[in-house]
Amino acid sequence: MRIDKSRLDDANKKDEARHKDHFDFLSNQLTMKGCDVESILKKLSDFQVAIPSWALGAGGTRFGRFGFQGEPSNLEQKIDDVGILHTLTKTAGAISLHIPWDVPKDYSAIKELANSHDIIFDAVNSNTFQDQKNAKESYRFGSLSNTNRSVREQAIQHNTEVIQIGDKLGSKSLTIWLADGSNFPGQSNFQTALQHTEDSLKDIYKTLPNDWKLFIEYKPYEPNFYSTVIQDWGTSFMLANACGDKAYTLVDLGHHLPNTNIEQIVSTLMLKGKLGGFHFNDSKYGDDDSTVGSVKPYSLFLIFNALVYGMENNPQNPYPAWMIDASHNIKDPLEDLIQSLEAIQEAYAKALLVDQKLLTGAQQNHDVVKCQEILQDAYRTDVRPLLEKARLESGGAINPINAYRSLQVRENLIDERGTDSVASGL
Amino acid sequence: MRIDKSRLDDANKKDEARHKDHFDFLSNQLTMKGCDVESILKKLSDFQVAIPSWALGAGGTRFGRFGFQGEPSNLEQKIDDVGILHTLTKTAGAISLHIPWDVPKDYSAIKELANSHDIIFDAVNSNTFQDQKNAKESYRFGSLSNTNRSVREQAIQHNTEVIQIGDKLGSKSLTIWLADGSNFPGQSNFQTALQHTEDSLKDIYKTLPNDWKLFIEYKPYEPNFYSTVIQDWGTSFMLANACGDKAYTLVDLGHHLPNTNIEQIVSTLMLKGKLGGFHFNDSKYGDDDSTVGSVKPYSLFLIFNALVYGMENNPQNPYPAWMIDASHNIKDPLEDLIQSLEAIQEAYAKALLVDQKLLTGAQQNHDVVKCQEILQDAYRTDVRPLLEKARLESGGAINPINAYRSLQVRENLIDERGTDSVASGL
Amino acid sequence: MRIDKSRLDDANKKDEARHKDHFDFLSNQLTMKGCDVESILKKLSDFQVAIPSWALGAGGTRFGRFGFQGEPSNLEQKIDDVGILHTLTKTAGAISLHIPWDVPKDYSAIKELANSHDIIFDAVNSNTFQDQKNAKESYRFGSLSNTNRSVREQAIQHNTEVIQIGDKLGSKSLTIWLADGSNFPGQSNFQTALQHTEDSLKDIYKTLPNDWKLFIEYKPYEPNFYSTVIQDWGTSFMLANACGDKAYTLVDLGHHLPNTNIEQIVSTLMLKGKLGGFHFNDSKYGDDDSTVGSVKPYSLFLIFNALVYGMENNPQNPYPAWMIDASHNIKDPLEDLIQSLEAIQEAYAKALLVDQKLLTGAQQNHDVVKCQEILQDAYRTDVRPLLEKARLESGGAINPINAYRSLQVRENLIDERGTDSVASGL
Amino acid sequence: MRIDKSRLDDANKKDEARHKDHFDFLSNQLTMKGCDVESILKKLSDFQVAIPSWALGAGGTRFGRFGFQGEPSNLEQKIDDVGILHTLTKTAGAISLHIPWDVPKDYSAIKELANSHDIIFDAVNSNTFQDQKNAKESYRFGSLSNTNRSVREQAIQHNTEVIQIGDKLGSKSLTIWLADGSNFPGQSNFQTALQHTEDSLKDIYKTLPNDWKLFIEYKPYEPNFYSTVIQDWGTSFMLANACGDKAYTLVDLGHHLPNTNIEQIVSTLMLKGKLGGFHFNDSKYGDDDSTVGSVKPYSLFLIFNALVYGMENNPQNPYPAWMIDASHNIKDPLEDLIQSLEAIQEAYAKALLVDQKLLTGAQQNHDVVKCQEILQDAYRTDVRPLLEKARLESGGAINPINAYRSLQVRENLIDERGTDSVASGL
Repeated sequence: MRIDKSRLDDANKKDEARHKDHFDFLSNQLTMKGCDVESILKKLSDFQVAIPSWALGAGGTRFGRFGFQGEPSNLEQKIDDVGILHTLTKTAGAISLHIPWDVPKDYSAIKELANSHDIIFDAVNSNTFQDQKNAKESYRFGSLSNTNRSVREQAIQHNTEVIQIGDKLGSKSLTIWLADGSNFPGQSNFQTALQHTEDSLKDIYKTLPNDWKLFIEYKPYEPNFYSTVIQDWGTSFMLANACGDKAYTLVDLGHHLPNTNIEQIVSTLMLKGKLGGFHFNDSKYGDDDSTVGSVKPYSLFLIFNALVYGMENNPQNPYPAWMIDASHNIKDPLEDLIQSLEAIQEAYAKALLVDQKLLTGAQQNHDVVKCQEILQDAYRTDVRPLLEKARLESGGAINPINAYRSLQVRENLIDERGTDSVASGL
Repeated sequence: MRIDKSRLDDANKKDEARHKDHFDFLSNQLTMKGCDVESILKKLSDFQVAIPSWALGAGGTRFGRFGFQGEPSNLEQKIDDVGILHTLTKTAGAISLHIPWDVPKDYSAIKELANSHDIIFDAVNSNTFQDQKNAKESYRFGSLSNTNRSVREQAIQHNTEVIQIGDKLGSKSLTIWLADGSNFPGQSNFQTALQHTEDSLKDIYKTLPNDWKLFIEYKPYEPNFYSTVIQDWGTSFMLANACGDKAYTLVDLGHHLPNTNIEQIVSTLMLKGKLGGFHFNDSKYGDDDSTVGSVKPYSLFLIFNALVYGMENNPQNPYPAWMIDASHNIKDPLEDLIQSLEAIQEAYAKALLVDQKLLTGAQQNHDVVKCQEILQDAYRTDVRPLLEKARLESGGAINPINAYRSLQVRENLIDERGTDSVASGL
Repeated sequence: MRIDKSRLDDANKKDEARHKDHFDFLSNQLTMKGCDVESILKKLSDFQVAIPSWALGAGGTRFGRFGFQGEPSNLEQKIDDVGILHTLTKTAGAISLHIPWDVPKDYSAIKELANSHDIIFDAVNSNTFQDQKNAKESYRFGSLSNTNRSVREQAIQHNTEVIQIGDKLGSKSLTIWLADGSNFPGQSNFQTALQHTEDSLKDIYKTLPNDWKLFIEYKPYEPNFYSTVIQDWGTSFMLANACGDKAYTLVDLGHHLPNTNIEQIVSTLMLKGKLGGFHFNDSKYGDDDSTVGSVKPYSLFLIFNALVYGMENNPQNPYPAWMIDASHNIKDPLEDLIQSLEAIQEAYAKALLVDQKLLTGAQQNHDVVKCQEILQDAYRTDVRPLLEKARLESGGAINPINAYRSLQVRENLIDERGTDSVASGL
Repeated sequence: MRIDKSRLDDANKKDEARHKDHFDFLSNQLTMKGCDVESILKKLSDFQVAIPSWALGAGGTRFGRFGFQGEPSNLEQKIDDVGILHTLTKTAGAISLHIPWDVPKDYSAIKELANSHDIIFDAVNSNTFQDQKNAKESYRFGSLSNTNRSVREQAIQHNTEVIQIGDKLGSKSLTIWLADGSNFPGQSNFQTALQHTEDSLKDIYKTLPNDWKLFIEYKPYEPNFYSTVIQDWGTSFMLANACGDKAYTLVDLGHHLPNTNIEQIVSTLMLKGKLGGFHFNDSKYGDDDSTVGSVKPYSLFLIFNALVYGMENNPQNPYPAWMIDASHNIKDPLEDLIQSLEAIQEAYAKALLVDQKLLTGAQQNHDVVKCQEILQDAYRTDVRPLLEKARLESGGAINPINAYRSLQVRENLIDERGTDSVASGL
């Protein structure tokens, strides 16, 4: 299913007058403050976030899963779903594949399909946290860190294949999330596991094409409940340094212990030129994978403030790869992603409003009250008209959720795919 | 498969001399301190912990599950597994059924089977956190708290049926773990959800036989990630009071926010006569459901210290129902349960060694250093000889793990059941 | 020092045109959505938050304290400081005294002074967590919970005196924050401590005038590091019920374990008619006592959403007593309080914008996406023009921080009081 | 006051028979298992922990402090207190000074005094988290990270002086705990602060004598409540690498976010040869600085297991500097330290009992159950007879707490120093 441009234009018509009114007011207000509204709009339009192929169906917990109707049951349908998101939001111009859940059968057909949606293939993701049918070795006790050499070799080989698959699609980076760790004290020798992991990563790194990047994700716990080999940014950073210049740390918002100051980690990594990728989601308790911005929007803003600062001041750091890594347990996955994309753009827009020069001055004067006023002045601004404008100029929807509903997208998908389709993967 | 008594005796023989030596030394040492060793042994023998029917197969996480060979594939085999545990440990004399995963077909045959293993049926557990095939209503948005009356009625009706099933088996209590809650701010009206829950619980309570108890479990999060209707002991306690004298709070060790002082909650509930049931497990991060005592054994001891105090000083509180509620993701489930039972008995034995009179005196004198010395003197004692003695006198194994392995129990189960059997339920 | 009305008017003049422009735009926008702007303004004007007498000087940590110049060194100066806050913000029309730090010498003079600032005396606070010079008994090992009867009696007697002092000033409530607990396992008998606390509170309750309320605060830890007698809302609620109809729970935002769902606690207490008082602050790690809204403004909004719902739907609950309980370690205390008051009003205004009817409908339809949209539509609105209008209409400052600075309030206070004055109390 | 050797011998006499009985039994048991008891005793005797000069008086919280009688009021008395600890425990053969709280006046007299107690001077500690009287610059907004160059220079200069002081006493390492950070979002530029810190540390490093080490401590929060420049091991490790070979990370047990796997951090640092120092304490909530082993003794054991492994297998890592960094709020500081020393030795002894070869085998076979059995077999052993023996052979007390009390040490100190002496420093 594709969204008909004329029907989308009709949907926008209802909101146009209100939008224009709000945008003009805000634009005027910001201009008077010295903001370059055009430049902000340009940045918002350029900001594209990859959608992972596994996020288009309903997720679940260890206690079960409540399915959603009209789920995409193959890679083509997943790309179509991202196409719908991109048509509406103009900010989802990439898909991130998970191997082996989404191995293409016909590469040129798949690339053509993505191209027709104006979607590129971002980082590819390997999977060594589950056993695949007929696999020779089991990852029950780890993969890249396993004490058993043939398990490590199988996992290295898998990553090499993922790179090859991604290469055929135009991807330029590999994301490794290593679930390896242990469930009980004593189960694993920390040093041996770390050394094996370093060696395995180096082996994978050797097979990386020259214009590729390797992203090393970290996570403190889950699925392992006592230790995780790459438990924090420090470990990831150390491993990335050991691998080489093309290796980077990947930050996933949900992968931190309670109360971690994530924006500081982001700043440190960008100062050192090592922030490669970024996964968006939100959480209240653990790695809840909730809708971006649904629980802690101010934290998201503070993190974007660090990201914006780094993008403007740290040429030593590459432009990061952005992805949403959320799970949609009770919402329509596409609506959930639309809400996430909106929250990301909102936080980004607000961070762009921060008067960095004023802020630096206040910081140097130790005027703590003013520093807070500057940040909160940006945060308190209602930036929705900016987001609407950026989308509208790119041909998207003024209000994507409303358009999605009024165009009856889900109903159409159910008609096409039935009520019982199940997304491949998780 | 049943463990042959004579083979078990043979297994014990090897350890008997060493055991006797250790026990005599410890017994002597304790007696000199004024401990009544016989009375402690009696208490250890009497302490029986229920095994839940869902804990006999491999558990998993939302990222997947690694199966275990020789899993019990029906209720009869589950009872046999508990029989094996009880034969070895003499502390697992009860099973706790989960409905609808384990509805008996032939009640008298099942009771006879359990009886042949010297096992009773402890609390029955209802399930309104998953949808059953062909169910009229879905629990996707809650059960007892649902805004939809017919969903609530279905959930109430289910609980009533669980009581009836339990009644036929000789159970005397119903445990309700209510997963109801919400994933996002705004999704649920807290007051409406709480009121519906209270009303639904009262409806279930009305159908409770006179000699039954209702246990209301609490949990702060998971599977819901923003709010849970019965999020803490305070809510459970309030609801239990609203229901009546037969309603109690159930404490599960894993169901608390980080750093909660659980032993204090236990003390408060027992003082008020409202601690009905208790679920054992351990955890480092969230509700990890790890082996009891594998992560925080001193906490377990402190909790037992509170339980022992309550059992001795709070006649207003009934004798609690004990159950292990752990998940066995990478260990043999039976070995995991043996380790859990050992850790429970160890903590109980150490708590029984605390000189309560001396402790009360030190507390009254505000001799904080001495209070700590008294607790730690008990905790530092190696009580394993007491556990061995209690098991040996009851006909169990001196060392259950060793016996389990030397008698090749798992190998026999695989022979009987095959490598691919999957436990019903989770 | 008092702020001259005409100088304040001058300060407002500069902002008036911009304010009018912004307010008209927002007012129009809200009216079109069906909001009753006048009613919201009225509610904002009526909302008054007490300032505690100990919050007007610099706070500190156990590692030290950096003083602030021009601190008020006696009760009169503290009242003057609140007067300054109230003049600027028109939302700080009350002071909450801490005894024995702020015992008036001349009651009628003090009342007259407060009256001249349009300030009333809200809840009085007792202190049994520190030893006072020449006190007969020490609170080192607890006060209301102490095993020593004469310590308990001294603490009860102190609370009675605090009531008498408050009564002379027109206060109508007593807040008890009980720091009692223990630092080490074994130090305290939980049941004895709880029973003593309940009995002591009942003794204090007996001396409460008929038109007074007793607020029982809870806190999980600090200054005690192992257990706290009133560790959570459940304990406070239980004790309030034991005392009687005039006893209530008091919620302090910083007094919760990590990740606690506070808005749900608020909802539960209001449903049961037991939310008596509320302390505002913010925190990232523990009881940091940071500026309200500086860390988690969305949480504050969600909590206000629960408060607004309760105030409109729970006649069984009294109107709560509001207070800021923050510590100002590196900011000018008055500026910090202005920022806090602004954040409180902002969250309140946004909560008032939530379309409760629409939300209830979406909740009943389980339209989770829409529920989130409704909440976030309110939250994303820039409500500052509403706050400005409410203040302006009451005679306050359009922008209190700017006015405070342009009127050189702190400079004047330093001139009057010197650079080395130290606030009494902490 | 010094403990008379003959009176100590008398105190030991009462326990000698019991001790011998227990030791012989345990020694026999361990020898049968293949343990080299003599070697363990030797290691226990060699293990010496520094006592910080600030830990000999009563600590407090931001809410106040309850003093303790007989506190040492000058450096000489502090050294005497450590002497008492060392005489009793034979494991406290070092003192760690805090500058400027404990600047010696007469170096040779102080060295002689320490020598007479068989005490050496371990790492010296600088203080840039408090302002000293008459200091030119204030550390209110940071020290080594301050945006103001002259503040940074003052802080660097202070550290250089601390090195000089330490050098005169025979210290060989400087510990820098940097409290620098920020209380509010926006207050500080993370990258600037980090860069300044790195530069300042390098400046200090340059002044380090060749045979010295620099220890860089990390801490996630407190006294700053939003960000801390050196917030985790990753930051400390990065800075240590930037400084050079003589710079190391220092781990303090209380300086971690909830649930951090500290033993894994220890293992990583030792593998990389960068674990320089170690501070012992315990905690339930934050940086509570409780008695070592009073809350989480099993964690302490797991950490010691990592330390023992590293000391035996990582020649690339220097022998770490050990120190107790605890605060004694309600216990006699000397008794508290005796309990801490006992807990440290206990955890060390248990870790030495772990059969590393057996464990490695079980790890390689992925026999998770056996791994746990091996660790817990060591942990469950009552090792107190080993500790007694090690102390007795070195001339210390069989039971130091009992000896301390029976010899009436505190009473003597009060006689000497009075009831109102206050320890310098915190």
